[in-house]
Amino acid sequence: MRILGIDPGLQITGFGLIDVDGPQLSYVASGTIRTAEAPRGDLPARIRLIFDGVREVVSTYQPDAAALEIVFVNVNPQSTLLLGQARGAALAALVAGSPPLPVGEYTAVQMKQAVTGHGGAAKAQIQAMVQHLLKLPGQPGKDAADALGIAITHAHASRSFAALAQATPLARRQHALYRGGRSY
Amino acid sequence: MRILGIDPGLQITGFGLIDVDGPQLSYVASGTIRTAEAPRGDLPARIRLIFDGVREVVSTYQPDAAALEIVFVNVNPQSTLLLGQARGAALAALVAGSPPLPVGEYTAVQMKQAVTGHGGAAKAQIQAMVQHLLKLPGQPGKDAADALGIAITHAHASRSFAALAQATPLARRQHALYRGGRSY
Repeated sequence: MRILGIDPGLQITGFGLIDVDGPQLSYVASGTIRTAEAPRGDLPARIRLIFDGVREVVSTYQPDAAALEIVFVNVNPQSTLLLGQARGAALAALVAGSPPLPVGEYTAVQMKQAVTGHGGAAKAQIQAMVQHLLKLPGQPGKDAADALGIAITHAHASRSFAALAQATPLARRQHALYRGGRSY
Repeated sequence: MRILGIDPGLQITGFGLIDVDGPQLSYVASGTIRTAEAPRGDLPARIRLIFDGVREVVSTYQPDAAALEIVFVNVNPQSTLLLGQARGAALAALVAGSPPLPVGEYTAVQMKQAVTGHGGAAKAQIQAMVQHLLKLPGQPGKDAADALGIAITHAHASRSFAALAQATPLARRQHALYRGGRSY
């Protein structure tokens, strides 16, 4: 199964793809979609760059599933609204195909927990653990590392859902208490 | 010129189309895109309904330009984020074509000002004025009336921009002080 992780943002949207074969994770590609070429005040142009960029990644790498970071509410409501629009455009690009990609959603805390083992991990720790888990020759950039981390989180969650299908009712109930992330 | 007005929302997105021929405005179509058929918590499914719905309206009616309401920041930051995502999906659908639709953006106050003459108009006044301006046999629903109002606002703004191209430098400067709306 190939998973596309997306860390959405109005300036920079990170993406990262991994292949999952049982417990084995392998790196496919990662990078960023930037909107700097659009004039700062031109929201429609920036939304188009995000939408087209995500569509291009999907058509190039043909993932089977996607995972999208749940963005934070900003202290500034106007920034929250802008970030929401960027995320809406990225999400639209993931589900615009036919059939739409199944999309899992995870918070940054869930991602840090899944990748480093603690939800308060620093950016550098995420980068180091993503490099380690995917056996990369060098550290990925912060935005790509976050996106790869989201893809890894989805791989863990999917595996634990698969295990769950085989579990006893008691294990299933305990699992429900601890699991994070919503999967659609 | 055919203008598509959009009043975006996560539950209900209003749309309205008008044809503009000089000072003459005529009604083409209006309606709503609803996401109620998707489960409440399934954001990707709702985003897909909004995106597909707007794409369908665009391909059915082939507008030359679009106008999108600038949404309000909600008192609840989580609602602001959800509304932002709905608007981002609608905006992505407007600019996803090739070539992308030019999109004007207007606040509700600018729309009320353009349609009724005062920025604090009630919903019922907007519905009545939209019915009057477009010579409709009955009152449009609230969401469709807002979307038609946004399209009418764009028609006014475009006409005033066109007049401006012929104006003297003084008139141009005065116009710049009063005009509302950003056009891309």
